[in-house]
Amino acid sequence: MVEVTASNFSEYFSEIEEAIRQCDFIALDTEFTGLKIDDDANKPSLFDGGAERYAKLRETISKITICQLGISVFRRDQKQTSVYVAKTYNIPLFPRSFGPVDERFVCQASSLQFLCRYKFDFNKFIYEGLSFLNEDQERQVREHIASKAMFTGLERDLDEEALQRICSRVAEWLVSKDNVPVFTLQKSDMESFPLYVLSTELRGRFPTIWTTVDSNLKTIEVQRIDQGEREKRESEELTNQKQQEEQLVQRMLGFTRVFRVMKQCKKPLIGHNNLMDLMLVYDKFHLPLPASYTEFKSQLHAIFPWIYDTKHVIFRMRGAITEDTGLLQKTSLSEIYKELDSDKGRDLVIFPPAVMHAEGHTKYNGDSLPHEAGFDAFMCGFVFLRLAHIKTFKDVKSSEVIPCLFRRYLQSMEEYCNKVNIIRARINNISLDSVDYQSEKPELLFVRSRLMKKRLNIDQLAKWFSPYGNVDIRVFGKNRALAATNNFKCSRDILKAFRGHPTIYVAEYSIWRHSPLVRGILWSGAIVSGGLCILALVGSVKERKP
Amino acid sequence: MVEVTASNFSEYFSEIEEAIRQCDFIALDTEFTGLKIDDDANKPSLFDGGAERYAKLRETISKITICQLGISVFRRDQKQTSVYVAKTYNIPLFPRSFGPVDERFVCQASSLQFLCRYKFDFNKFIYEGLSFLNEDQERQVREHIASKAMFTGLERDLDEEALQRICSRVAEWLVSKDNVPVFTLQKSDMESFPLYVLSTELRGRFPTIWTTVDSNLKTIEVQRIDQGEREKRESEELTNQKQQEEQLVQRMLGFTRVFRVMKQCKKPLIGHNNLMDLMLVYDKFHLPLPASYTEFKSQLHAIFPWIYDTKHVIFRMRGAITEDTGLLQKTSLSEIYKELDSDKGRDLVIFPPAVMHAEGHTKYNGDSLPHEAGFDAFMCGFVFLRLAHIKTFKDVKSSEVIPCLFRRYLQSMEEYCNKVNIIRARINNISLDSVDYQSEKPELLFVRSRLMKKRLNIDQLAKWFSPYGNVDIRVFGKNRALAATNNFKCSRDILKAFRGHPTIYVAEYSIWRHSPLVRGILWSGAIVSGGLCILALVGSVKERKP
Repeated sequence: MVEVTASNFSEYFSEIEEAIRQCDFIALDTEFTGLKIDDDANKPSLFDGGAERYAKLRETISKITICQLGISVFRRDQKQTSVYVAKTYNIPLFPRSFGPVDERFVCQASSLQFLCRYKFDFNKFIYEGLSFLNEDQERQVREHIASKAMFTGLERDLDEEALQRICSRVAEWLVSKDNVPVFTLQKSDMESFPLYVLSTELRGRFPTIWTTVDSNLKTIEVQRIDQGEREKRESEELTNQKQQEEQLVQRMLGFTRVFRVMKQCKKPLIGHNNLMDLMLVYDKFHLPLPASYTEFKSQLHAIFPWIYDTKHVIFRMRGAITEDTGLLQKTSLSEIYKELDSDKGRDLVIFPPAVMHAEGHTKYNGDSLPHEAGFDAFMCGFVFLRLAHIKTFKDVKSSEVIPCLFRRYLQSMEEYCNKVNIIRARINNISLDSVDYQSEKPELLFVRSRLMKKRLNIDQLAKWFSPYGNVDIRVFGKNRALAATNNFKCSRDILKAFRGHPTIYVAEYSIWRHSPLVRGILWSGAIVSGGLCILALVGSVKERKP
Repeated sequence: MVEVTASNFSEYFSEIEEAIRQCDFIALDTEFTGLKIDDDANKPSLFDGGAERYAKLRETISKITICQLGISVFRRDQKQTSVYVAKTYNIPLFPRSFGPVDERFVCQASSLQFLCRYKFDFNKFIYEGLSFLNEDQERQVREHIASKAMFTGLERDLDEEALQRICSRVAEWLVSKDNVPVFTLQKSDMESFPLYVLSTELRGRFPTIWTTVDSNLKTIEVQRIDQGEREKRESEELTNQKQQEEQLVQRMLGFTRVFRVMKQCKKPLIGHNNLMDLMLVYDKFHLPLPASYTEFKSQLHAIFPWIYDTKHVIFRMRGAITEDTGLLQKTSLSEIYKELDSDKGRDLVIFPPAVMHAEGHTKYNGDSLPHEAGFDAFMCGFVFLRLAHIKTFKDVKSSEVIPCLFRRYLQSMEEYCNKVNIIRARINNISLDSVDYQSEKPELLFVRSRLMKKRLNIDQLAKWFSPYGNVDIRVFGKNRALAATNNFKCSRDILKAFRGHPTIYVAEYSIWRHSPLVRGILWSGAIVSGGLCILALVGSVKERKP
């Protein structure tokens, strides 16, 4: 691993760029400053489809920031066909302010405490974090530079009163009838303002002056000129400064420059439970997340045509493996990594590809640093490779397992491409390149009070159902409710337990689908779900990895 | 100075408490994570009265957090009457999350970069920051503990699937007809959950069980009991645990315990440009800021009956001093401190009180650390003492200057009591114990287009007026505007410069006050100021010290 910061980024950029251009795939992970910005409104629910979940996450993601990003760039070794070499970059990111771009981001106390558990260095984040801009912000920075108001708002300690005293003197000279052509501000006049700052301030305030900074004598000469001459001189100066300003923009762009290389190269992008990562990357480096879920999907797909989520892959692949070997029961990234890196994991299918850290990237050799973004990215790439090998050769005779190109791995993983895991929702994953799958979750449960006059108590229902698993409940009217569960066993257990219950009646929603009365209620319920319905979420919810 | 953190607070609390009880006055300063949360809506404006400014600051303050607080507690030495001893505490604060209390706070990139300039330690802030709660949050913590759902949401990595497997087994046993009275979870059953966490989770999910943790054997015994028995046992257990839980609440209260001692002792509270400090202290340690400005003032006054703002004091006192000596031209805290601590400053009035750091509080000896909250608090207390001495004895013959009690200083400073400075507003200060002063600012300027069909261009007006000083502009209708300036000279200069201007007419608003037509326009303008009016703010605005 190499740590890339604001101060060494210019040294590493071309290495990173080259690594991306030559690689087979990129694994990416982010750490961020908050998880749920709002306690209630944006809570994930088992009723959520893809669009609902996207809307909730978008609300959060627009307000938080990425504090650390890891990319691990994997390339098959050119000499040893079954060896992959990983170049891993761990990058603290910080949204540096400049002119009108002054990011406000939310920190959630528990999220920062979570980072503390993994020894996150907040000083490195804030002091040395690499800058980044999305396209909107880049436009603002460029406009700001063009407007020459460059230092307004930057120097927060600018002494407004002192500035006022200086401006008053210039104003007096400007309106005076004496016709003194040049007014010189001496060092002693400038009350500790940097020359360039003051010069810019003066030009901004007086449209018919020209200022010339003499940095040796530490003076500013102020001349009367007409607006035409002013514009001419500004345009000349602008041409000279273009290069310097472009350098400034490039410094502000920071990590966005890496993102743009990724966007150009369109290599497969791997993550673990990476919906939030993808949305963060889009929002912070590309453009603010669009309101439309389908627009997000199509735009993201245009940028990264091949996205893989190892959490989704595990869920789809593990059945037979778990039965045979007991492996892959847990789906947290570090558990999977540990298992696949163990002897038992290596033996799942013969001749798995070896993974080496590239020269100069050896900090992670023998080290385990879960929740450091670089290390998580590396683990994720490793896991993807091993799973791809298993998938490719699991039904092939041992004697026929031969080192193969990465392309072959990618072909065998095709069915998982652009499927991204989604937790505690009506669906198990979203499809980035097509309409989301229909639910693989159990039917909703329909609940009715047996005593027609008795109002259903949502807290009571929550208490009754929660021992059987995660259940979310919506109440309709006085005495009807729907319950969404996370798995079939939970639904079955609830149906069994409440058969013949004295006060509530519970059934699968499908039985009721054909009753016009109930259909009417549900339909109206669905429409007003933000308004009249009450949503109770039972149990604790975790969107974060695992 | 002593650095007080989460880990050493219990050692220092009684020292701090005693210092506060015995002191003459307390100086306080805060550092915080953001300054302007919204670029436009909450920008301070020269049109703002006290209530408008309060509303804007309240919006910001509710969203940011204090990251460092300094108190410097001054006491006159009991042996040497003209020596004061200062105990200074520099305290990183961090809003630790617990149960439902999980603070979200906004960081503004430029504010964090500002802190970087003074070498702020963000790791100390987040890793070692002392906890705090306002009364609302304390209530939530207490309710949460009482509800016994103590660990829900705390353990973010709680493996929901594993928990589900355990709960399913308990549910099966509970509904089984076998009548096995006790179900024992062995260590191997618990999948790495801490015993107490699991026990609490189980009780939360099953209302008719009792759990007994055997921490030696590392087992949990689960018993069927009825709800009455459950409640009885819970209440017994609760009594035993009360003390432990109270300790937990006290740990969460953290700095709020110091605030409560301050509230009780009602010592004079000194700050520099301290409106934001006062509002932050209220919001974070007392109660969320009320919507009503007058309620805030009366509540704050009840807590701290004697508040002084050294920035306000300087503005009121400096006239003759500046004329005579050239001192106190600048009003930033560190400049004033440096000047009053210089030989020239010491000589302003004979026999000024000496200030010493208390034993064990000597870190600031000979050191200058502006914008470290503890050091700013210390400087502020020092400045207050020196100004009080000047105020008390400036018109007294040298031979009659004698060491005096602090009470005498306080009496001579009475006219400044509960007046707090406010920048870029319609008024210069607010009164915490009475109705705010009427404006000491120049009349508003009335602007009209001379060409009745020509619309006034707000940007053009801003450009025209800004050379003369800070000006805020509101446009009414097509061709009328009001302009607010910061001082009389600026107003006069604008009036002079635009006399006979070809396209706009500018006059003092007072001339127009008696015209029913204009009064009508202004009145309707005032009403719709949030809607139809456009507010342009010219120049950069700084609410932060100085």
